[in-house]
Amino acid sequence: MRPSGRSPQQLRTVRLTRQFTRHAEGSVLVEMGDTKVICTASVEESVPPFLKGKGEGWVTAEYGMLPRSTNSRMKREAASGKQSGRTQEIQRLIGRSLRAVVDLKALGERQITIDCDVIQADGGTRCASITGAFVALQDAINGLLASGKLASNPIRAQVAAVSVGVFQGQPVLDLDYLEDSDCDTDMNVVMTSQGGFVELQGTAEGAPFSRSEMNSLIELAEAGITELMAAQKAALAQ
Amino acid sequence: MRPSGRSPQQLRTVRLTRQFTRHAEGSVLVEMGDTKVICTASVEESVPPFLKGKGEGWVTAEYGMLPRSTNSRMKREAASGKQSGRTQEIQRLIGRSLRAVVDLKALGERQITIDCDVIQADGGTRCASITGAFVALQDAINGLLASGKLASNPIRAQVAAVSVGVFQGQPVLDLDYLEDSDCDTDMNVVMTSQGGFVELQGTAEGAPFSRSEMNSLIELAEAGITELMAAQKAALAQ
Amino acid sequence: MRPSGRSPQQLRTVRLTRQFTRHAEGSVLVEMGDTKVICTASVEESVPPFLKGKGEGWVTAEYGMLPRSTNSRMKREAASGKQSGRTQEIQRLIGRSLRAVVDLKALGERQITIDCDVIQADGGTRCASITGAFVALQDAINGLLASGKLASNPIRAQVAAVSVGVFQGQPVLDLDYLEDSDCDTDMNVVMTSQGGFVELQGTAEGAPFSRSEMNSLIELAEAGITELMAAQKAALAQ
Amino acid sequence: MRPSGRSPQQLRTVRLTRQFTRHAEGSVLVEMGDTKVICTASVEESVPPFLKGKGEGWVTAEYGMLPRSTNSRMKREAASGKQSGRTQEIQRLIGRSLRAVVDLKALGERQITIDCDVIQADGGTRCASITGAFVALQDAINGLLASGKLASNPIRAQVAAVSVGVFQGQPVLDLDYLEDSDCDTDMNVVMTSQGGFVELQGTAEGAPFSRSEMNSLIELAEAGITELMAAQKAALAQ
Amino acid sequence: MRPSGRSPQQLRTVRLTRQFTRHAEGSVLVEMGDTKVICTASVEESVPPFLKGKGEGWVTAEYGMLPRSTNSRMKREAASGKQSGRTQEIQRLIGRSLRAVVDLKALGERQITIDCDVIQADGGTRCASITGAFVALQDAINGLLASGKLASNPIRAQVAAVSVGVFQGQPVLDLDYLEDSDCDTDMNVVMTSQGGFVELQGTAEGAPFSRSEMNSLIELAEAGITELMAAQKAALAQ
Amino acid sequence: MRPSGRSPQQLRTVRLTRQFTRHAEGSVLVEMGDTKVICTASVEESVPPFLKGKGEGWVTAEYGMLPRSTNSRMKREAASGKQSGRTQEIQRLIGRSLRAVVDLKALGERQITIDCDVIQADGGTRCASITGAFVALQDAINGLLASGKLASNPIRAQVAAVSVGVFQGQPVLDLDYLEDSDCDTDMNVVMTSQGGFVELQGTAEGAPFSRSEMNSLIELAEAGITELMAAQKAALAQ
Repeated sequence: MRPSGRSPQQLRTVRLTRQFTRHAEGSVLVEMGDTKVICTASVEESVPPFLKGKGEGWVTAEYGMLPRSTNSRMKREAASGKQSGRTQEIQRLIGRSLRAVVDLKALGERQITIDCDVIQADGGTRCASITGAFVALQDAINGLLASGKLASNPIRAQVAAVSVGVFQGQPVLDLDYLEDSDCDTDMNVVMTSQGGFVELQGTAEGAPFSRSEMNSLIELAEAGITELMAAQKAALAQ
Repeated sequence: MRPSGRSPQQLRTVRLTRQFTRHAEGSVLVEMGDTKVICTASVEESVPPFLKGKGEGWVTAEYGMLPRSTNSRMKREAASGKQSGRTQEIQRLIGRSLRAVVDLKALGERQITIDCDVIQADGGTRCASITGAFVALQDAINGLLASGKLASNPIRAQVAAVSVGVFQGQPVLDLDYLEDSDCDTDMNVVMTSQGGFVELQGTAEGAPFSRSEMNSLIELAEAGITELMAAQKAALAQ
Repeated sequence: MRPSGRSPQQLRTVRLTRQFTRHAEGSVLVEMGDTKVICTASVEESVPPFLKGKGEGWVTAEYGMLPRSTNSRMKREAASGKQSGRTQEIQRLIGRSLRAVVDLKALGERQITIDCDVIQADGGTRCASITGAFVALQDAINGLLASGKLASNPIRAQVAAVSVGVFQGQPVLDLDYLEDSDCDTDMNVVMTSQGGFVELQGTAEGAPFSRSEMNSLIELAEAGITELMAAQKAALAQ
Repeated sequence: MRPSGRSPQQLRTVRLTRQFTRHAEGSVLVEMGDTKVICTASVEESVPPFLKGKGEGWVTAEYGMLPRSTNSRMKREAASGKQSGRTQEIQRLIGRSLRAVVDLKALGERQITIDCDVIQADGGTRCASITGAFVALQDAINGLLASGKLASNPIRAQVAAVSVGVFQGQPVLDLDYLEDSDCDTDMNVVMTSQGGFVELQGTAEGAPFSRSEMNSLIELAEAGITELMAAQKAALAQ
Repeated sequence: MRPSGRSPQQLRTVRLTRQFTRHAEGSVLVEMGDTKVICTASVEESVPPFLKGKGEGWVTAEYGMLPRSTNSRMKREAASGKQSGRTQEIQRLIGRSLRAVVDLKALGERQITIDCDVIQADGGTRCASITGAFVALQDAINGLLASGKLASNPIRAQVAAVSVGVFQGQPVLDLDYLEDSDCDTDMNVVMTSQGGFVELQGTAEGAPFSRSEMNSLIELAEAGITELMAAQKAALAQ
Repeated sequence: MRPSGRSPQQLRTVRLTRQFTRHAEGSVLVEMGDTKVICTASVEESVPPFLKGKGEGWVTAEYGMLPRSTNSRMKREAASGKQSGRTQEIQRLIGRSLRAVVDLKALGERQITIDCDVIQADGGTRCASITGAFVALQDAINGLLASGKLASNPIRAQVAAVSVGVFQGQPVLDLDYLEDSDCDTDMNVVMTSQGGFVELQGTAEGAPFSRSEMNSLIELAEAGITELMAAQKAALAQ
């Protein structure tokens, strides 16, 4: 039995609120149950030095957690003077996931920075960030298309992510914090709407996992991501 | 005429939403018009080294802005590896303002940390932070009283803050961003519900200000803070 | 009774020694009683990036304390790897105060950096820094005028600063360390020779302060600053 | 055809040289073709603060590259003042992989730190590090057993790692640098000698990868890891 | 001919002003011509962690330059966030030189920190620092003896330092900035009043130096240090 | 008697292995007994900002120790976020020593960076680094000559270094760790093949050293460096 009473293949309630804040070119509050992340997309008409003059754009991401988004207060990374290894790992993952569905040549020499800031954490913040970030990115791209700065859409597919894991011997979809801190295996799966994988990160917290467990987990993830993509589509259609 | 159409002595719409997030002992979303700040209060049953064994508590504050809370994206302080001078100035101000109304001996050997994180900025974020932080602090103290960890309330008075300034020759209350970036004088006023000042910070951005301008500004501030304290009271009564 | 035996409206002995060190374009030792600060002005024929090509100059300040300028040794900020919030707050204040009396357009595309280094501290170091920095700035400007690099004086007025406070229930002028560490209210006042305020920073360390206390403090400050400006004039006339 | 002329399921030549340096409790040079990493295991009779008094040990890892281990010189991380996101990601991966096969309770209150320093890089440095680190760890544990500090072996299984990827449409084992920088999918697989997975990290650099590609990659990895474990055993038997 | 008109074996005018500032246990302004350094000695009744409980004391030094002590303004190390290699090299040298004449066991479990802050630089700041630091250290020790905290003097000998160099083919004593920036060889010599060397650091800036040049330089240094020690004695006798 | 059984004037076994790693323009493993340092030379076709457009080149050095190159594990400098004073002192020394034998004008506008990384330490790592670095530098220069990028050799002489010290009252050559940690005087001597000194750094760890001890030490060093230069020549001739 899952602590939340959900069935093994059940996502938490997903909410994607567009235009959550006012200034960014894209701004989305993504909620997966009690996990809440503000994702903003900021367009800048220049690229990082390593891309100057190559006729290509860039999409990158930064990630942070408010100090009291968690059960006990974490140190503020700005105060301690550096981002943790975990933070860097997550923002690199978000950036790669988004770039996997963008034609950077078609984006032109501009950069879109996605900021994912967790205001309330209940497990799965990196996956929620990717799912929400895609919608913010699409909103920013839509703005560029509407203003004529882009002639055609550089986004090739949707991208979304979900965690899966083996909790008390049972493969389950979309781990919340209680499950995440007590599971044997934890896997983050990032897929595109064309059906392939762009990132797969599985970690055995306790016992190693077998091929057959992995297969079950991936099937759960595929089903979950299909639902998430429907939610993205619905939000973007409003 | 003010850009917002407000009269000189008119506050923006104030909203104080308690229990905005789930984990903190106090959690308040404060909105002053389009300025939105999440204020959380975290209770820790220990004090910083300089207070160890003195039988006193401590109240401190940290402040941050989401990178895209502003019109153009700011660098993330955690990524650049340090907090700006402005950030440090503001969090020191918030901490002093709150300590001015708390009996630290009565608080006992525990620390309450207030995190003020701006999710949308339209001027006046430091004053909004103080006004919201007080409510979060009161909620955290109420929890300590309810659980019996505190026998009596260490809070001696309410504290709230507002900015005033000389905009196009006219003293006005509660500057928004458009006014703030184009005013001659900008003053932040922090008062308690007992009527005295705890902080007063006036800066002439353009022409120096006179004694009589200062007097007008302070009168505007006193009236504004009275309204803000009513809003705090109403929120805490819910 | 004040610990120093001074009357409430009495400044400490002010000394402004020009050409205190040899290399800087302006170099002043300012002494307010036992508080001693070396203020140097350094002219650089370029401006920070945000002003490049705008035909304007910049005046900025940095502040530091020798580790044993104080009663017990402080950590060297260069060794601990960062400037404290207090240091940053003070150097921002000094910079704003000086810019308030300089026509940055008339200064041309050059930067003047004022370094204020406290070699002995007895309260009021930030105010002494401003008062001394103005003289160093004027000396540097005089050098630019003498060499023909500037055709006309970009300085519009004198600027000076003093602290005032409520010590044992009595408003007093120019707090020394003993008073500063035991006063109810501490206010730093920065004024120009044209009579207006450019900065006003009041903090209630103990009980909040009232309108009438504030008025008394400001009157003390106005009188003290008039004396300081006479001392600046006398020093510059030598 | 692979640039090196290897068949798709062929590892590079593996060499594990024990006692490579003199001071460490375990010291192994691991070579996978032209990739060379020094792995040392250092035993310390204390644990990090979060484990004090819990009767458990800890195994952790640090990773670095000599500035000219690569084709063009990289900045020295000690000089630039921080470890890159990539470095932190890798050392976290190595640490988790090793902890997966150690009974931390049985290790007792001591810490073993594995340092993996790349002296020559040709792709696959993180996987080589894990494979070599296991041997260094075993040597350090053997020393503790021999000296009587440990009564029984806390290592539950061998752990080793290999990369696999889709290069020019073909799943291949153990990518070298030329393949790694030009492949569609890159997957790092960490397994134990008991047959399960402890880490699986797949990234689509170009086109997303399908379930069937993933299956092929995992089969290649399983076969490669079997060979690597034989090499570990042979090295430890000498 | 030397730029200053001095003879090759002539020191600059030496001045040692004790009690230069008020708070430190020892405070000396040392002047070697236009080079001016404030040396303070601070006594702390505890030792660094590596000496805890060993019944020994410690003497250490820190060094800094005011940003405009030099001809063109240097960056403030506190602002750039780290001490340069040169600064660290110098403060390590000062510390070692002082420890060479102190019986650390006889000092007891306390630390004396010497701060050497250059307020005006004209070459030879590290040597002037050592010469002045010794006097500050002696003053601090005298205070400990006078107060009965020390029963006997832990200082075994005087220590002083001077630079020598080959300027335009001629060995000269006590290089000033003009000589220092244009000499072939630069050597810093630290000696005790018992006649031996504690530090010798020679660098060929241009052509390598020969044994016979070295011998001439060392003879100049010995004579110069004898004069410096007389100056130290005279200062301490006042 | 020396712990190693060597005679006072006996070097440890010297080994210089060229082409130790594959990527660098020069790559040498230098071994002085159990001290082992990898020295690589990296050529970059640009110069640091302070030399831009001056038609001159630059030679610089960086130094590091693997965390477990030493008897007990040292903190990784990349992890602690800064290089120690000792590291900076050593890399500055290596850089100066190499520049002493290079005609920087003849090198043209390019930079050669020497990385010296200690993989096993047994005393004398800075001297071994200089001796090995010279060979790596020569290899890099030979590559530039062979490819026609340089028309003539900018290297004017060989450079090598050795430590000498007074161990148990006896001047000895080439201190190992046991001697180094228990000697009265430690001196590092850097000489060129033309017979002069480029660096001389002597420190009295215990009793000060006399002129006659210094003379003995320097004679030992001269003889040792002659042997080291023969070893460099032999290595370069292979």
